[in-house]
Amino acid sequence: MAKTEKDKFLQVFGKHLADTRREKNFSQEQLAFDADIDLSTISKIERGVLNVSVFNIYKIAKALKVSPKDLLDF
Amino acid sequence: MAKTEKDKFLQVFGKHLADTRREKNFSQEQLAFDADIDLSTISKIERGVLNVSVFNIYKIAKALKVSPKDLLDF
Repeated sequence: MAKTEKDKFLQVFGKHLADTRREKNFSQEQLAFDADIDLSTISKIERGVLNVSVFNIYKIAKALKVSPKDLLDF
Repeated sequence: MAKTEKDKFLQVFGKHLADTRREKNFSQEQLAFDADIDLSTISKIERGVLNVSVFNIYKIAKALKVSPKDLLDF
């Protein structure tokens, strides 16, 4: 199946989140705990298979101590 | 009912989107058309009653000719 623009965008976003998380020395488990988001949700976002909501972006950014806009800076 | 952190965040986000849209001289109708998103959805996002997805943030940013991160820069 051909990748759609949405698939591509979500994959780039997910990779940027995973990179930012690793730079901040967070495991997926620690991020899930600190952001109060299911681990499976974090995993899906990073794999680009879940279209995360803006409030979850805010919660993830807060846990990682970055600005929400930094998670869209790619 | 007391406002939750989520309500407050979505309201600030929605107001920033509405301000950005007006700066760019877009009506809600024109933004909805260019971004290929329902007008009712644009209206709900701006009123802070809809937790928009990251791909819709991307589509809105593209229509307004701004960077997705600019929509989270507040």
